[in-house]
Parts: sequence; structure tokens; C-alpha cells
Amino acid sequence: MKVKDIGEQGLLRILQQFCPSDIIGDDAAILTTEPEKSLVVTTDVLVENVHFSEVTTSPEDVGWRAVAANLSDLAAMGASPMAITVGLGLPGNVEVSWVEYLYTGMTQCLGSFNTLIVGGDLVKAPVITIAITAFGQAHPQNIIRRNTAKVGDAIIVTGIHGASRAGLELLLHPEFGKNLDETEKQTLIKAHQRPQPRLDILPILRSTVETLNVTPLQISGMDSSDGLADAVLQICRASNVGACLEWQKIPTPKVFKSWLSPIQALEYTLYGGEDFEVVLCVPSEFAEILVEEIGGNAAIIGKITSNKDVRLCDTQKEIPEQVLRLDRGFQHFN
Amino acid sequence: MKVKDIGEQGLLRILQQFCPSDIIGDDAAILTTEPEKSLVVTTDVLVENVHFSEVTTSPEDVGWRAVAANLSDLAAMGASPMAITVGLGLPGNVEVSWVEYLYTGMTQCLGSFNTLIVGGDLVKAPVITIAITAFGQAHPQNIIRRNTAKVGDAIIVTGIHGASRAGLELLLHPEFGKNLDETEKQTLIKAHQRPQPRLDILPILRSTVETLNVTPLQISGMDSSDGLADAVLQICRASNVGACLEWQKIPTPKVFKSWLSPIQALEYTLYGGEDFEVVLCVPSEFAEILVEEIGGNAAIIGKITSNKDVRLCDTQKEIPEQVLRLDRGFQHFN
Repeated sequence: MKVKDIGEQGLLRILQQFCPSDIIGDDAAILTTEPEKSLVVTTDVLVENVHFSEVTTSPEDVGWRAVAANLSDLAAMGASPMAITVGLGLPGNVEVSWVEYLYTGMTQCLGSFNTLIVGGDLVKAPVITIAITAFGQAHPQNIIRRNTAKVGDAIIVTGIHGASRAGLELLLHPEFGKNLDETEKQTLIKAHQRPQPRLDILPILRSTVETLNVTPLQISGMDSSDGLADAVLQICRASNVGACLEWQKIPTPKVFKSWLSPIQALEYTLYGGEDFEVVLCVPSEFAEILVEEIGGNAAIIGKITSNKDVRLCDTQKEIPEQVLRLDRGFQHFN
Repeated sequence: MKVKDIGEQGLLRILQQFCPSDIIGDDAAILTTEPEKSLVVTTDVLVENVHFSEVTTSPEDVGWRAVAANLSDLAAMGASPMAITVGLGLPGNVEVSWVEYLYTGMTQCLGSFNTLIVGGDLVKAPVITIAITAFGQAHPQNIIRRNTAKVGDAIIVTGIHGASRAGLELLLHPEFGKNLDETEKQTLIKAHQRPQPRLDILPILRSTVETLNVTPLQISGMDSSDGLADAVLQICRASNVGACLEWQKIPTPKVFKSWLSPIQALEYTLYGGEDFEVVLCVPSEFAEILVEEIGGNAAIIGKITSNKDVRLCDTQKEIPEQVLRLDRGFQHFN
């Protein structure tokens, strides 16, 4: 059964099952924000054959990833998610079941965070197009921005980088993984298909800041959805500072060392993207305790410097010294 | 100069000029809602060759109409606009100037309502795709919903219907307007190209409700973006009631009488769509004063009935009696 067989009203009836019935059905959705909290909004558009393809991504995974990308933006701002809206463009010959699986993946990812789909739009389009807007809220003093990094700040990542890119490569070229065992392969593939937005760090940040009695607004950062290098470069550009990254300290999947050349591993780690971790800049005296509280693979990977470029600083013979560039990551229209 | 010549970062720099510099530049935008007001959100996706085409619509008008559609949804909910986000999908060969004109049209429409573009996303897509999410706020007791219409309520429209559809026809087939003078033609074309979201009715509704000391929540309604018939049908379905529409009382463009057959005029009026007026259902004792306060072409056009269908009730020989149907309006995928 295809979308064109049941039409807009038929598909709407199916998709409304994924939404709370008391909120949808009007021209707009109504949400209640907590007093004294700011509203934080972010939007992402995913286009078939640009952001995903049938080859590498099931509809559930497309839905999961689309939601994860938006929730990751909220996490990077220090905001707790409230709801999302979904604008969906579809060709008429898409299977209705594909759309149901898409919404299943979206609600699976949203489910862990008590977040609902509160509305959207459904239109005809030549390729599948998914426009998600996510709404979160945060106390103004807990909001994390890009433009407040200071010289001397330690740079923290909340987890490993490069796994999602390696997982994508394994999906596109299975022979590339012939030296990996099945568990290693599946771990990397899962990192690509089911990334976890790091909303779990928000209560940790709040409690650490409270415990340490740090003045508000000393944490800056953004998420690493467009790659670790991109995140550090964007923070530095917005804050008018530079950074020195200690390559050896960036957490990567364990298998990278035996499986990939150092150059290849570095490429995936810095420019791979879509790991949906958060890059944080904090005064160096608080960095270690914060990394300990976040746990897992969180690590201090470098520091903010006064010269304006972003460099790899602990280079050795195998990794040439280099200044990182924004145009190495994925850029639309190029 | 085409989008692909300047790339994502180049285009972002241009588009950021249309946004307030203190709000953009992070993973998400931060907005402050007024205490005790609810957040109202709505989203619309417009796709080239589905919702607009180069033939009938300049990029400024595409931008204006995209914003007007979203602000109209807020008006229909009783909410004042705060901001919008814009998710934009573009083929690489779109002219940069086209995109600048698009944003010019959007900011022109937003300008009258003190509303800003606070963020968005920019991606490659096979056709131009514009996903707008608009945020508004309203006191909970002023929110207008679809599902509260009551038997006996008067049905009010805030203005004329059919003009946008007639304007579109004149753009597609100029010879169709050979019996109209230039002013008449331009009035209809402007109704299509530059529809006015009816946010002006919000203070009128509030002050009238206050003056009359009416219990809150007695006004239900929605906008007529998908046609007048669709709006009445949707309200009736959501409220589990029916309606009787007095065809002669529906305000239409003056030229319809001499220019169109009664059947053709009725078709445009009921099913044309995109007039972006608001359809309101109010207790009949308050209807006349409300219409007077709204002014312009506002009119009482019928009443809510207990039988569940929506009928034309003042039919004459030239207009056959008929039950209106949801599937007569524009439906995606059909």
C-alpha cells in the first residue's frame, strides 16, 4: 500500500497515532513552558539521497537519527527537550509502512526523553524530506553557547569520535571490515544507525556546577554532529580564540589502532561527523572532575589558545603537524 | 552567481544578515516566553512545483506567502507571533539572488508583526523546499481551538473568500481576465501573492470578550488556508456538530457577480483556499458586535447545527442544495 493509495487524510489518520491526541488537531500545538525557563529551538532538514539512503539506513534508523540530531542540538545548548514537530515531504509512491517505520524510529528515540511529536505538516515532494523542529527549555544560566570559550579553557569531549563514520563505511563497503570480528563491526554500525543524543550530561553539568559553586555561564560548547574538527573550529571562531588538540587524547573506537592507518583513523575522528557527542570548553581547574562525573569515554582533548587557529599539537612522525580547516568537513552545495 | 558557487558557508553568511546577530550562531535559538503564556507552535512545508512555481510566484512572494501561512495558523489559534525558523532545501543551481529575494519577502511579511527569523537549516535538495516553524504565545484562556464549536453558534468569516484562487487563475491564464479592468485584476492577483495573516483580529477578540464579559473559551475556529469549506468541515468534525452556510452572505470579491457564473464563483469561494482568513464560531448573541468590531468584510455566514453535515442552506435555482465534502479541496497525494 502506497501513500498515494490512502491520500493525505488517510496517512494523517495513521500518523496521528504517534502523537498525543489532546495536542494535535488544531492549526498549531500548545505547549506549556516552565516559568523562568527560556525556550530553546532548533531545526534540521534531512533529504533522501543527501542525508540518508535506503542502502545504509532503514526507515526506523532514519527516524531515530533525525530525532537524535535535533535532541543533540538541544543537549549542546544545555536544554531539556519538550516536543518536536515534523514536516514531512513524500513522493506518492512511498510505502505507507515505510512512513510508519519512520515514525516508529522517531518515537523510539523520543521515548527515552519523555518527548512528544506535537504536530507537523504532510506534503507531496519529489524525494523524502524530513524537517524536524525541536523545542527545549533551560534556565538562562544553564544555557551553553559557542561564543564564550576563553583562553586556557580545557576542551572536553563527552565520548568517542569516528565510530559513526566507520560504521557508515562498513555499511557502504562490507569488505572494508574483513579484519574485524562481528561484535566490532556491529558496534561501529550501531554508532552510525542509533546515535545517542547526550542529554544525559545535563543533570551532571548542573550538579557539578552546583557542587563546585562555579559562577554561571563558564561552560561553552556545541555538538559534534558535523565532526569534531568542525565543532572546535566553530567554537573558536565564535569565541575569537584558537585551540590546540592533543591528538593522542581524543577517544576513538579501540579497533581503529589495529584496523586503520593513523591518517585514516585521524580523518574519521576529526572529520567523520554524526557521532552526536558534545564538545565542551570549561576552566581547566574544573575539567578533570567534570570528565570523571560524565564518565564513559569522556576526555580532555586539548585547550583553548590565544592564537586564532586550531592545531593538532602532539603530532609525531606518523601524523604531520596541521592546522584544521572548516572546509574539510561535509559542506552542502560543494 | 549560483548557490553552488558560494557553498553552504557562503550562503549562510548572506542569510544571517536577515537574522538578529545576537540570537543566531548556536546549535539552537533561545527565546523568552512571557510568564503565564502558553507556547503555540505550527509548521508548514512548501515544495517547488507543488505549492508554488516560478510562473506565478516571484521569490519575494514565495517568502511572503510561506510566512503568511504560518502566521495565519497562529492568528487562528489566538496566538501572537514571536519568531520563526526556516529549514531550506535548495538545488545547487539556484541563483543566490533568488534566495536573497525569498528572505526579503519573508522579512517583509514578518516585519509588520515584529517577528524575527531566529534560526534554521540549509541543505541540498533536488527541488526548492521551505520548512517554516512559527512560535507564538497566548494566554491559555485566549487560545482558539477547533473542537469547541457549539450548536447554535454563529459562523463568522473575517473577510472575503475566493480572491486568492481567482488571482492564481489570472496569473496562470491571463486571457481569463479579459473582461476585468486592471485594478480589479491586480486586486485579485495581490490577494494571491500577498495574503495578510489576520493577526489584527487578536486584540479585537480580546477587547470584545473583555467588554462583553464573556466566559473564556467561547470562541472556536481555524484559518481558511485550505479553503472555506475545509475550515467549516474541520471545525464541525472536531466539534462533532454540523453547519448550515448561507451562501449569499459569504463575502466574495465584488467582480465575481458580473465576471463568473454562480457555480464558478461558489467553487472559488468554498474550495479556492489560501485566502488566509479566519473562520470563527461564537455564541450568536455576540456575533454581530464581533463582526462590527472586526470590520472590513467580516460577516456572519451561517450557524452551527446539531445534524452532522455541512450544508448550503439558502440555495436557489442557480445553486443546487448541497452537502459540502472534505475531499473537494486540495489534497496531497491524490
